[in-house]
Amino acid sequence: MEHFSDRLASAIRSRRSVVCVGLDPVLERMPPELVEKYRPQAPEADEEAAVAACFEEFCVGVIEAVADVAACVKPQAAFFEQYGAAGWRALAAVVRRAREHGLPVILDVKRGDIASTGAAYARAAFGGAPGFSGPLAGIGADAVTASPYLGADSLEPLIDHCAAGHGVFVLTRTSNPGAALLQEAEVAGRPLFLRVADLVRELGAAHVGEAGYSDVGVVAGATAPAQLRAVREALPDAFLLVPGYGAQGAGPDALAGVAAGEAAGFVVNASRSVIFAWQEVGGDFRRAAAVAAESMRNDLGGFL
Amino acid sequence: MEHFSDRLASAIRSRRSVVCVGLDPVLERMPPELVEKYRPQAPEADEEAAVAACFEEFCVGVIEAVADVAACVKPQAAFFEQYGAAGWRALAAVVRRAREHGLPVILDVKRGDIASTGAAYARAAFGGAPGFSGPLAGIGADAVTASPYLGADSLEPLIDHCAAGHGVFVLTRTSNPGAALLQEAEVAGRPLFLRVADLVRELGAAHVGEAGYSDVGVVAGATAPAQLRAVREALPDAFLLVPGYGAQGAGPDALAGVAAGEAAGFVVNASRSVIFAWQEVGGDFRRAAAVAAESMRNDLGGFL
Repeated sequence: MEHFSDRLASAIRSRRSVVCVGLDPVLERMPPELVEKYRPQAPEADEEAAVAACFEEFCVGVIEAVADVAACVKPQAAFFEQYGAAGWRALAAVVRRAREHGLPVILDVKRGDIASTGAAYARAAFGGAPGFSGPLAGIGADAVTASPYLGADSLEPLIDHCAAGHGVFVLTRTSNPGAALLQEAEVAGRPLFLRVADLVRELGAAHVGEAGYSDVGVVAGATAPAQLRAVREALPDAFLLVPGYGAQGAGPDALAGVAAGEAAGFVVNASRSVIFAWQEVGGDFRRAAAVAAESMRNDLGGFL
Repeated sequence: MEHFSDRLASAIRSRRSVVCVGLDPVLERMPPELVEKYRPQAPEADEEAAVAACFEEFCVGVIEAVADVAACVKPQAAFFEQYGAAGWRALAAVVRRAREHGLPVILDVKRGDIASTGAAYARAAFGGAPGFSGPLAGIGADAVTASPYLGADSLEPLIDHCAAGHGVFVLTRTSNPGAALLQEAEVAGRPLFLRVADLVRELGAAHVGEAGYSDVGVVAGATAPAQLRAVREALPDAFLLVPGYGAQGAGPDALAGVAAGEAAGFVVNASRSVIFAWQEVGGDFRRAAAVAAESMRNDLGGFL
């Protein structure tokens, strides 16, 4: 079974890109032609299904537009989940389409739970839930994001799937304004997020692929560049999933000193600045997304 | 709008019960008559839908059986999520049925994300996702569990819904073996989980109901009784959702010193020891669950 980290390294090298396109669809920002197409005509129509179908066409359009310039995509589960079963079905279709285009899919769920519950979350993302006549396929994401608050026994049920070609990105120092409160609390002279990084190093050591990266990576935000570099120092062979670029304010400078190995060792996520680029520049949403992703690839090309 | 904390206090008092029944369905432990009923006959059948329908009938059966002896129920989202859209639909049906029986529903999702993503998770659980012609109903849970790792700005999008009658239970010291690693890390002489408790006190102060409890409660495990008492000391008016009882090993002694106010101020979760009681005692699964829940209510009756 090919390692997740090798698939991601290969996608980065073949596209010469560290761009991760975040798929965060919201109804208020759907292009008018899709709103027109999916707005229900009958008052008794299933609105959840209509919004979900709209999201699916939008995300598939973005995926096809960025397939040659992005290294991977990151659907944000929350935006789909709020439309219930229909949203979940659209999410599965989006994941499938990205994989058909050879784009590794990092499902952003930030799950974390223990024992049999943690194992069920892993199967929800990766597949393998017990059916009456054998394991079921599930969503089939390549990797997930995970929250470490419950400790190693909440990460292990996810990491167990690395042996089957999957990956896990554990939250360390996130990109939000309130991140510091717990994550930078000083524990024995070091911030808590580096204790998480130590745990990730330990848990990821058994899952290093041919390209030299572990299948167990971390999320570390570009809005705190010094902390981002500290995470890299603690984890020389981890893939870093870096949010906070673009709409959240950070530029390429924030990535200085973060690259590692022959495939950069990180991907930089941008969601709104790519998928809703049509609102800034006008024209077709797919073309606007392709141009925005390509421009970001060029801005970050120096790291490859 | 009635406070969530008042609805929970009222359910505890009217049933004289602090029992929270956890709804954690797994296929391997479904009663034979349900397996027989839902096992697909055709090879091309939708197995996800079949398992989800089986879970729905099982959980609804348990809900009806315990409706008079439980204070609330706690469906665990992971067990439904692993069956995709069908699982999500079954989860919504289970939540609806529990509410029809007057049982407050704590949806165990352990979500935590920021800004627009956090708001989307809140709407996934509580309803209000934007539709083409107004907000949609969503799952309609009464309360959710939340992970604090991202800080206050990941809890606020959930807590914002307290004004509309909802509740949030933030993880503090959980019941699992690995909980201590981060949660008991010493920060300025105090364990991290008490820093989380301080944050909860601050965020919950504006949401105290008529019964004197805040709508912002915490999860604190019975497997660490000293830490459970420390959480109570830090949060005199919070509802505590206490896992770790029964199957995980703790008994009523672990609750000493934890009661607060006129409605105990806590609920004790038991999942497997109630819903799969039929495997221990035989007979109808509903009757076995009712007997197990009633026995637990009696064991914990001294706190009311």
